[in-house]
Amino acid sequence: MTRSKVSPDGRIPDRDVAAKLVIIMVGLPARGKSYITKKIQRYLSWQQHNTRIFNVGNRRRIAAGVLSPSSHISHSHLANGHPDAPLQQVASILLNGSRGVQIEEPTRLDLNSSNGPEGDERMDQSAKFFDPKNETASKLREQVALDTLDELIDYLINGNGSVGILDATNSTLHRRQLLVDRVKEREPRLGILFIESICNDNDLLEANMRLKLSGPDYKNKNPSKSLEDFKARVAAYQSAYEPIGEYEEKHDLQYIQIIDVGRKIVHHRLRGFLASGIASYLTTFNLSPRQIWITRHGQSFDNVAGKLGGDSDLTERGHYYGMALYNFITSKRKEWVVEQETKIASASFPPQPGDHTPPYPEFNQDLEEKNFCVWTSMLKRSTDTAEYFEADDDYDVKAWEMLNELNAGTFEGMTYEEIAMTHPDEYRKRQLDKLQYIYPGLGGEGYLQVINRLRDMVREIERVSDHVLIISHRSVCRVLMAYFMDLTREDIADLDVPLGMLFAIHPKPYGIEFHAYRYNEMDGWFDEVRDYKPQKTQDRNN
Amino acid sequence: MTRSKVSPDGRIPDRDVAAKLVIIMVGLPARGKSYITKKIQRYLSWQQHNTRIFNVGNRRRIAAGVLSPSSHISHSHLANGHPDAPLQQVASILLNGSRGVQIEEPTRLDLNSSNGPEGDERMDQSAKFFDPKNETASKLREQVALDTLDELIDYLINGNGSVGILDATNSTLHRRQLLVDRVKEREPRLGILFIESICNDNDLLEANMRLKLSGPDYKNKNPSKSLEDFKARVAAYQSAYEPIGEYEEKHDLQYIQIIDVGRKIVHHRLRGFLASGIASYLTTFNLSPRQIWITRHGQSFDNVAGKLGGDSDLTERGHYYGMALYNFITSKRKEWVVEQETKIASASFPPQPGDHTPPYPEFNQDLEEKNFCVWTSMLKRSTDTAEYFEADDDYDVKAWEMLNELNAGTFEGMTYEEIAMTHPDEYRKRQLDKLQYIYPGLGGEGYLQVINRLRDMVREIERVSDHVLIISHRSVCRVLMAYFMDLTREDIADLDVPLGMLFAIHPKPYGIEFHAYRYNEMDGWFDEVRDYKPQKTQDRNN
Repeated sequence: MTRSKVSPDGRIPDRDVAAKLVIIMVGLPARGKSYITKKIQRYLSWQQHNTRIFNVGNRRRIAAGVLSPSSHISHSHLANGHPDAPLQQVASILLNGSRGVQIEEPTRLDLNSSNGPEGDERMDQSAKFFDPKNETASKLREQVALDTLDELIDYLINGNGSVGILDATNSTLHRRQLLVDRVKEREPRLGILFIESICNDNDLLEANMRLKLSGPDYKNKNPSKSLEDFKARVAAYQSAYEPIGEYEEKHDLQYIQIIDVGRKIVHHRLRGFLASGIASYLTTFNLSPRQIWITRHGQSFDNVAGKLGGDSDLTERGHYYGMALYNFITSKRKEWVVEQETKIASASFPPQPGDHTPPYPEFNQDLEEKNFCVWTSMLKRSTDTAEYFEADDDYDVKAWEMLNELNAGTFEGMTYEEIAMTHPDEYRKRQLDKLQYIYPGLGGEGYLQVINRLRDMVREIERVSDHVLIISHRSVCRVLMAYFMDLTREDIADLDVPLGMLFAIHPKPYGIEFHAYRYNEMDGWFDEVRDYKPQKTQDRNN
Repeated sequence: MTRSKVSPDGRIPDRDVAAKLVIIMVGLPARGKSYITKKIQRYLSWQQHNTRIFNVGNRRRIAAGVLSPSSHISHSHLANGHPDAPLQQVASILLNGSRGVQIEEPTRLDLNSSNGPEGDERMDQSAKFFDPKNETASKLREQVALDTLDELIDYLINGNGSVGILDATNSTLHRRQLLVDRVKEREPRLGILFIESICNDNDLLEANMRLKLSGPDYKNKNPSKSLEDFKARVAAYQSAYEPIGEYEEKHDLQYIQIIDVGRKIVHHRLRGFLASGIASYLTTFNLSPRQIWITRHGQSFDNVAGKLGGDSDLTERGHYYGMALYNFITSKRKEWVVEQETKIASASFPPQPGDHTPPYPEFNQDLEEKNFCVWTSMLKRSTDTAEYFEADDDYDVKAWEMLNELNAGTFEGMTYEEIAMTHPDEYRKRQLDKLQYIYPGLGGEGYLQVINRLRDMVREIERVSDHVLIISHRSVCRVLMAYFMDLTREDIADLDVPLGMLFAIHPKPYGIEFHAYRYNEMDGWFDEVRDYKPQKTQDRNN
């Protein structure tokens, strides 16, 4: 976290054009471009850089009269970091199984299916449309790409954008030159970064395509026929495909190449902290099936007294929470192995409707021996909640400084009532803007500082292929949840995370699957909260 | 920074064989392998991972009877992180201009020179020795490589090593297979990471070779003839060179490829936090000529009172220090541009003895427009020392949380005398082990925590190509200096960094050039301390 005269909140690209970035995606369909695009968008937004995805395919469909402009807008509203959507609405879109996160490719796939009821009116988007020899269509596609790029540049120059991502195949040198020239012409100081996704591994490619067929739009389609059509379309692109390489290197263009879902990664000429940050974030990807659990510590004496911060012990109820957590997680861990094995055993091709088999066979090895990490903060109420895990050699328990609670500076150990009484100005300042508020005094932090120090934690969670349980504190859980659930800036500091809530995140190749559980103190167990939606806290202080 | 049951100090690879790493360097001579090797060793040692370089060339020379074993030992003593060398001795080796850091290649180069007085007795190391068709020599070289690897593995398995770096060309697939097989045979859990340095750019290559000719061993040699001999030797290697690629990818081997000094970087199958950490450190390289300045803030009221930590204001003398610092740095900044331009203008080929021209022409552009960053902590005594820079638009001033002084926890605001009186046990604990000691209380830190939080700072300093002035605090300056000067673990916490000392670091392709200045309060200026050596502080408290 840095503050400076030009940027008191550390968000430099908001103001400095030279720090803004145009990201141009490159790659054939079914190479995971949209997955990568969305991850980058979510990560950068979470790091407080305004980031938006501009999808050429959607614009093309509008130009060709297939998609109505309004459906375009509602789509881009979702994909673009939904700046104005209220918490509940966004979360419901995001959490609604795979529907909410599979946006681009399924829609496009559907358009090419000649089996669907809408087959006829979409003929102009079929494989012929993508034939590089079809000159009229080719001109139209070029114009649409440039229009979309213009929209992106407007967002950076005239809007409040820091990063714009042009999501399209951009698979020819000619097209990429055209895009670079347009950016340079409109604002030469803008940074340009190509991100190309390549898939050489046939198993991976088959798995990627298969994943598309198991998407919600294919419930009633013939998977074999759909796959055939999809492959024909990919072949049309492939005939003209020119991967990034010599030309870009000769012209000192920045690029990142991701080969076979991160097995191999190439960085070329990366400049500036945004490009470097994206590069190091992209190196952490892994698609291992696993669970990420997030909860707060058990009840502490300071919780009972309503005091901020501090380092007090767990109450007896707090210790019981630790025990229940250990029992529940241990049971869920065993359940998970059985579920995964059943899925693998019942996998078939063509996939059955709703078949969500983990698609990458190499990640299905060693399911039983998968490590389980329990990460706490350095504070007693957190480490003590992990005491039962600590006693079991099947868990790796580790305490991290960066998981510590937000430091309340000189207000550590006070209650909110005391602060309101003794420092009414500070109290009011915080009420007005919890996200930007920084506690006074040495070491005092705000949410932006916590977001910053958790950047490495998020990278570490993304990097390891083990299960992870994080036992931390209110503000840290809020910030981590904001990352995984793509919460808007405004909602982070108000997310309701009471003691006893336990969240489970299952990363999937198409996004995340999410579950919430509430501690049942009577039973020493957890009850699942069905259709859980993130809520605003009711207590203005917390 | 993490603590856990298996690793209370966060140094996991000390104990866990599976986290230990064998790094195998790959690349033709004059590709910067030794430069990279030494940077990695310095960075990892600074991050408290025991790291040692094992140089095959030195062992080969001993085997061939050219180098005496004792000279080998004294070399490896320097290159290997000198675990036992006292502060003064190490520093004097390190700081002795380019002599101290140019170790491997010049020695080897010298051996091949047929001009030197020792030409005859070294004939067996001439270009013929490196001819792949010379079978006896080839067998000998193979044996030497395996012996060196065994020594490395011993260091990891039986010694206290975390990372061993095998520094050699390892330019054939056969050789690399042999090495991998030997590691697997001796300890299959050890990680293996290949790091290959490739140079496609002829300007760079010429500059690299030229740099060797300007080394201390060539003062009295004919540079044109030396270069010719050197090129012949490189050609011998080149005829059999097989770059890393398909084979390694098919066998899922981890590798990092660095092309043209980091212009392009390839990561393949990186696993584990050490490999990831090395990869992200290696992406920050740049060879721009520039200056890095390090100093503490001006005198504060708490300095006068002898109180720890806090956030007090500068005294009047402290404000004057800020003014003198601004005047001196501004003058030095102008001087630097003139020096660089003179060097470039007087460069010639073949280079004259002592010709240290910045070797990479592309980095010599925009010398005058080079940015100058002034980075402070978030504390008043640090930001206020930068007040004159803040007022000048030719400086970019930025305040960083991670440059804050070591947090003394509950002892903030106390004097050492008070601590000794009220908490004699804590006082004694710290006296016994300042490096490991962690101040009690919320947010209390120790040196290991400061090292950890400065990791990103070091990467940022290495990444930017601008000049940087860091105005920080005692512990932070110690830890930064430890990185740049490769201080041993034991010496970090005792390094003498009084108020008013100003250090200048010029990164060079062969290492660093170092200058120290002392504030002259009478003149409002700084005097250079000639032959400055890092010293232990005389005050046991500080």
